[in-house]
Amino acid sequence: MTMDLQTGRCGVDGAAAAARRVIDALVRAGDISGADMAGIADRLNAVADDLEAQAPPLRDRLVNMWRGDGNTRHDPAAGPENPIAPPLAYTGRPDGSIESTVTLGLPYQGPPSSVHGGVSALLLDHTLGVANGRAGTSGMTAELTLRYHRPTPLFEPLTVTARQVSVDGRKIRTTGAIAAAGRTCVTAEGLFIAKPLPRPR
Amino acid sequence: MTMDLQTGRCGVDGAAAAARRVIDALVRAGDISGADMAGIADRLNAVADDLEAQAPPLRDRLVNMWRGDGNTRHDPAAGPENPIAPPLAYTGRPDGSIESTVTLGLPYQGPPSSVHGGVSALLLDHTLGVANGRAGTSGMTAELTLRYHRPTPLFEPLTVTARQVSVDGRKIRTTGAIAAAGRTCVTAEGLFIAKPLPRPR
Repeated sequence: MTMDLQTGRCGVDGAAAAARRVIDALVRAGDISGADMAGIADRLNAVADDLEAQAPPLRDRLVNMWRGDGNTRHDPAAGPENPIAPPLAYTGRPDGSIESTVTLGLPYQGPPSSVHGGVSALLLDHTLGVANGRAGTSGMTAELTLRYHRPTPLFEPLTVTARQVSVDGRKIRTTGAIAAAGRTCVTAEGLFIAKPLPRPR
Repeated sequence: MTMDLQTGRCGVDGAAAAARRVIDALVRAGDISGADMAGIADRLNAVADDLEAQAPPLRDRLVNMWRGDGNTRHDPAAGPENPIAPPLAYTGRPDGSIESTVTLGLPYQGPPSSVHGGVSALLLDHTLGVANGRAGTSGMTAELTLRYHRPTPLFEPLTVTARQVSVDGRKIRTTGAIAAAGRTCVTAEGLFIAKPLPRPR
């Protein structure tokens, strides 16, 4: 892993951040941009060709991904290595909950100028899982219920929070929410089962 | 909109497909690839710079996105213009349900070698919404409940289905599922309210 001294980012994180800019700019452009889309496709395919030529075997990468303390860097919600992830960065709060602030752009749109309900579900499912990890008992999602109270705005800071509520045998209950300007947009209740899948070795 | 005669894809769709290859290759590479990540970041930032220099005003793009029959091309689940979307393509079935087959790779990973529970939620929320549209009565998601019956595998064809169950006044009830090799992995029940947000004009 190499660190960029100027940005403080590891190499792959910087490339993922640049890929996020490409995703956002492509969705912004659509088919009404003056950009040479065939040329853009050629340049992106050339980048993909070069990355694929240097790719480690899938099995090696899976082992590498799952090494360590359980905090993954590749997931599609909080992973700095994954261009799909906004990404979320979490801080702990005194009451044991966790919190992240994020602003989402056009690639995450569902209804007009609003966050896709499924994207809210992705961010909440992941955040509930991270809250479980920080509380010391993790599990696989068994059931997740989302309630949408009002549209979640794009282009404004959102606060994503979660808190582990109880652990009863292998059953873990966790709640979370997304709020904008202090108003709750989405709430989530999750039931998790403390039986993680084995890690690749 | 320009069509590539060889691929049959419109310009922006081809660029989005190439961006999907970049996303997949970056997550595959991580920090154990031999690739020059600083150079990759420079090339991707240059593509983003060029796209941003040609970008239409945001308001124009929003109006453009929401023009037409309600089938959007930019969303993060089924949108061919959105590199975050796998994307899903739907076919109708004789019983009024809709179906899509998709194989997901590393960028969509949650548990080891499995689809992230939140990604399943994203695909199902969207598919329920499309089923509502095809049935003739659409709405905003009010409540979504997901049940995870077994891990959803990466790298294998998944069948995503949905069906509108009932319309009672403004309340729409819709169900869906994700299956792999004929076995149900995730089921979803959604309550939608038939009060769409106004479209940008």
